[in-house]
Amino acid sequence: MAIPKVHGSPLSTATQRVLACLYEKDVEFEFVNVNMREGEHKSENFLALNPFGQVPAYQDEDLKLFESRAITRFIAQEYSDKGTQLLLQGSNKSTAVFSVWLEVEAQQFDGASSKLAWELVFKSFFGMTTDAAVVEENQAKLAKVLDVYEARLSKSKYLASDCFTLVDLHHIPNLQCLLASPVKKLIDERPHVCAWVADLTSRPSWAKVLALQKQ
Amino acid sequence: MAIPKVHGSPLSTATQRVLACLYEKDVEFEFVNVNMREGEHKSENFLALNPFGQVPAYQDEDLKLFESRAITRFIAQEYSDKGTQLLLQGSNKSTAVFSVWLEVEAQQFDGASSKLAWELVFKSFFGMTTDAAVVEENQAKLAKVLDVYEARLSKSKYLASDCFTLVDLHHIPNLQCLLASPVKKLIDERPHVCAWVADLTSRPSWAKVLALQKQ
Repeated sequence: MAIPKVHGSPLSTATQRVLACLYEKDVEFEFVNVNMREGEHKSENFLALNPFGQVPAYQDEDLKLFESRAITRFIAQEYSDKGTQLLLQGSNKSTAVFSVWLEVEAQQFDGASSKLAWELVFKSFFGMTTDAAVVEENQAKLAKVLDVYEARLSKSKYLASDCFTLVDLHHIPNLQCLLASPVKKLIDERPHVCAWVADLTSRPSWAKVLALQKQ
Repeated sequence: MAIPKVHGSPLSTATQRVLACLYEKDVEFEFVNVNMREGEHKSENFLALNPFGQVPAYQDEDLKLFESRAITRFIAQEYSDKGTQLLLQGSNKSTAVFSVWLEVEAQQFDGASSKLAWELVFKSFFGMTTDAAVVEENQAKLAKVLDVYEARLSKSKYLASDCFTLVDLHHIPNLQCLLASPVKKLIDERPHVCAWVADLTSRPSWAKVLALQKQ
């Protein structure tokens, strides 16, 4: 049986989300580097994997998936008997709460944190100038989200429950970027958020993702 | 047994998403109007339902949910034996394709279409001035998304499969806004998208949502 392929870039936070999931599940895979500087993600071959021309894409024999959060959900389900249990088991009511916090990451956290990562980390990497107004607006948005997280994490160890799940995993790549920026202070000011971030970014699966970046 | 409550505003597209889902499933519910002009969504009572202070919120006895897409997923699952089947049944591989298109709506379509709805529909409703640069940027983004949809809808009747699912339903509120704006031309120019939009917005469930707006 062929092993699944992840087509992506080690610098892309969406790719990192899928890689972290595969390492948590202890699933063997092949990483296919997509050279985004050369525009490979807009090539005909890549568009056949993801018509939106964005990394990552996932290929498992005849199955082709894109959108990092759909890929992680598939992996968590497909390899439910391997590695870390990333889905919340139980009644429809308890999985509904899991769905709520999955959506919170995607709808509340991701927008502000991705814009801050772009302005404060990636732009300087590409020699571009940070837009202070965008930073200010999104810092305020992120602070409100982290206030809700602080309250939530004072009641449960992780966002969806007392167990680490896909919800927490989805946050790691952007959190890692923010730790390398002045926005780190928003994390440091909130003790439960700070402990949660330290816990997430010290997971062995995440160390493997960072190691792949350095290859 | 108490019937579930939806706390929201008939003008909010996220609220409309949940209402359309309940009408599709033929589920009896109580609608609790949240007066956003009076700031009721930021009141202590409402924040106990949704700490982000955004409509809608869903209450079913002791279960409290927020984030419209998590609520619709819960309803589709909880009432799987009633009304329209909104989930894609089958193997993990076929539900993975359903997840991909759910994420496409949330990650690709929603951002651009929500910004256009705000600039071109809601701002004039509130007597505010449209920002032409934001319109231009998001029209270009939406056009690219609709190009992918046009190709997809030339192969299957709906986005996730040949059956109407939650994926299509999630699009309806923003599509309805765009139909009332100059962006309608982006839909009209693409025959498969145009037929899909006409089909979605003529569903009896959607007529009931629009009727609720006029009360």
